[in-house]
Formats: sequence, structure tokens, C-alpha cells
Amino acid sequence: MTQRIPIVENILSANDNMAGRNREILDRAGVFAINIMASPGAGKTSLIIKTLEALHGRLKLGVIEGDLATSIDTDKAIAAGMPAVQINTGGDCHLDAVMVSQALRSLPLSDLDLVIVENVGNLVCPASFQLGTHLNVLIASIPEGDDKPYKYPGMYKGVQALIINKIDLLPYVPFNMDYFQQGVEILNPGLITFPLSAKTGEGMEAWADWLVAQVPLKDK
Amino acid sequence: MTQRIPIVENILSANDNMAGRNREILDRAGVFAINIMASPGAGKTSLIIKTLEALHGRLKLGVIEGDLATSIDTDKAIAAGMPAVQINTGGDCHLDAVMVSQALRSLPLSDLDLVIVENVGNLVCPASFQLGTHLNVLIASIPEGDDKPYKYPGMYKGVQALIINKIDLLPYVPFNMDYFQQGVEILNPGLITFPLSAKTGEGMEAWADWLVAQVPLKDK
Repeated sequence: MTQRIPIVENILSANDNMAGRNREILDRAGVFAINIMASPGAGKTSLIIKTLEALHGRLKLGVIEGDLATSIDTDKAIAAGMPAVQINTGGDCHLDAVMVSQALRSLPLSDLDLVIVENVGNLVCPASFQLGTHLNVLIASIPEGDDKPYKYPGMYKGVQALIINKIDLLPYVPFNMDYFQQGVEILNPGLITFPLSAKTGEGMEAWADWLVAQVPLKDK
Repeated sequence: MTQRIPIVENILSANDNMAGRNREILDRAGVFAINIMASPGAGKTSLIIKTLEALHGRLKLGVIEGDLATSIDTDKAIAAGMPAVQINTGGDCHLDAVMVSQALRSLPLSDLDLVIVENVGNLVCPASFQLGTHLNVLIASIPEGDDKPYKYPGMYKGVQALIINKIDLLPYVPFNMDYFQQGVEILNPGLITFPLSAKTGEGMEAWADWLVAQVPLKDK
């Protein structure tokens, strides 16, 4: 098993090259892209659908949905009125840049301002694979518990924004926000954080406003 | 990247051999072992601690805790009165049989009836790696949502028991139990299922009684 490490490095290097090409395609089309990562069930799809509503038409949004199987999330995104492409990884525990490259070809990039890539639900593997997006965003979820930054440090280190979803459940589950945020601060000092509830809508405007501010104006 | 598949097969085969050796060590010591898998934050550690209480001393329990980092879970298990060993995988997204082999050497097997292995929080990777335990158990969690069997079929196919944790949150989150259970039934017909709340204790006795019935009487 000693030959395993260089092969993993080769795969990651090939992936980074393809991620660079994805970034060129996005930039040429004037499309900003974010990669949303989270545990299974943290609310990635709900957040995306509620983000579309909170944007009030300020940005034209497309979605790439990553899952091991099914088109459940793409069906929801299309029903909400977004162009959406499903990637089924088969058994792979994360998206990679090749998968995203193929999906980008199926989106009407010239009509879009923002593409949200919803990664496979997993707090470990997606952190190692750049996709060519401009920002990595992590969704934590209140019922997951307050110790997740400490237990999944790689994921918390590698993102440029953090959403804390399901704050409507704070009265019903044990969750020490100070302990959670101390863990985040150790790993990723000053990380911008949006506590919100995609279900009730609380906090969605702050996230949507920040997102709009990240996306460059289209010069065409 | 075409050489990737045979190497993964070699790793899995080496892992299966070591899993077989773990099973022999367990059987020789008269110790039953289960591998608990779940998403991050589904409540694996809480379930284990509440299982100890619900067993009322009927079984002597030891724990192997798997995490990328920290000894948070082992500290909790030891505080609850169980012999416990922490495995930190570094960055690996699952436990493997070699890691468990090393951990088994640190547990007082001759004093134990049951070892619970808590895998890394992940609904994908742990399903591919046998550890040598006698049963695989999955914990689903109500706030994760009702579509998880459909999205993570490999995990749901590979287990011999299913716990549905955090049923106390059913009034506060959207979760269609029929839809969830239909997904389980397609993937794993007749799978024994324990809806419970490790927090309130509801349903814990049924799970503990079933667990006691699985563990052979020690003939010494």
C-alpha cells in the first residue's frame, strides 16, 4: 500500500489542472461560482432554493447538484425555476473537477450570473478536491452538534464562508454557540459566518446580500 | 488514472484479510462487536452512552471511537464508565480493519461482552470497509431528512440494523416517515429498525433488549 500516496497526488494534481480550466470557462462567461459543502441533511438544497427567493431576481442562478444517486435535488431546483444539472457520482464520496466540467457544458452560462455547485453530503472528502469555483462555502447545521469544527478540521479550514443553518432548532437541541465558534475561530480566523434558518427565512437576507456583493458586475 | 481501480481492489482485499483476523480475535475472546456508522452529528456517541445505561449492566461494554481528530468522544465514553480507545484517522474518511486491529489490542477484551466501534461520521466511505465486527448498524437522524436512503443507497444496503435517532424532533422538522421507510425497504427488505431518541430515552429499551439478544452467552 506504499504506492498509494503518489497516485493520490497524481489524481489531485490532474484534478487541479481541470479545476483551473473550469475557472477559465466560468471567468470567460462572466459567471461566478460557489461550491457548497456540508454533511448529509444539513440543508444544502433547501438553502439554494431559499437563496433564489432571497435574491429577488438580483442574480440569475444556475445549479449543479452532486449526489451518489437520484435526481431528487435537481428536480427540486428545476421546480423552483433554476436551470439545474445533476451529477450522479455512482459511489464516489465527492465531486471532482472533471464531473463539474461536464456539468458546466450543460448549463446556459451566458444567461447566468452565479452557479451554485452542491457537493455530495460529506464533511471529509469534498475538502480535498478543488472544482474551479471562486468560493467554498460550508453549511453547518444546529442538530449536528457544536463539536464539528474540532472533529472535521480540514473542512472548516478550507472554506471562505460558513452558514449555520437550522437555527430555528436551537431551543430543542443542545448546542453551545460559543464553543462552536471558538472551534471555527481556531481553524479559520475571521471566517464570515451567517446564522440562518432556510426553513423560517431568518437570516437569509444577510447571506443573499453578501452573496450579491461577491459577484462581479457583468461587463456585457 | 486507469490503474486506480485494481489498486483500490488490492486495498479492499488486504482490508478484508485483516477484518477476518479481527473477527478471529474477537471470537476467541468471546466478544461480540458492532460497527456503528452515521452522518456527522447523527448522535453516535450519545447513542452509545445511552445504550450503556439501557443495558443496566447486562453486558460489559467497550468502545472504539473513530474520528479524524480529537479525543472528544473517547473522553465522553470514559467519563460514562466504559473502557474506550480513540482512533484518529488523520484525514481518512473511514475506519479500516488495520486501525481497528490496533485498537482491539488496547481494550481489555477478556473483561468485555460487547465492543461498539464508532466509525467516522460519513454516509459514504465507511460502507466499503469491513472491520471484522459481527454487525453493521446505521444511525439515521430525523433532522437529516427523509430522502437519505435514496441518496446514500450503499450505506443503507450494507447494514443489519437501523436506528432512527432524534424522534423527539419530529414535531419541528419536515420528515415523512412513510417515504423514508419505503426507501429503506427497497434497499434492505425487512431491515430491523429502532426509532428512538437518545436524548429523551424513548425507544432505548427495545434497542438494548435486541442488542442483548444478539450477543452470545459467554461460555466461561
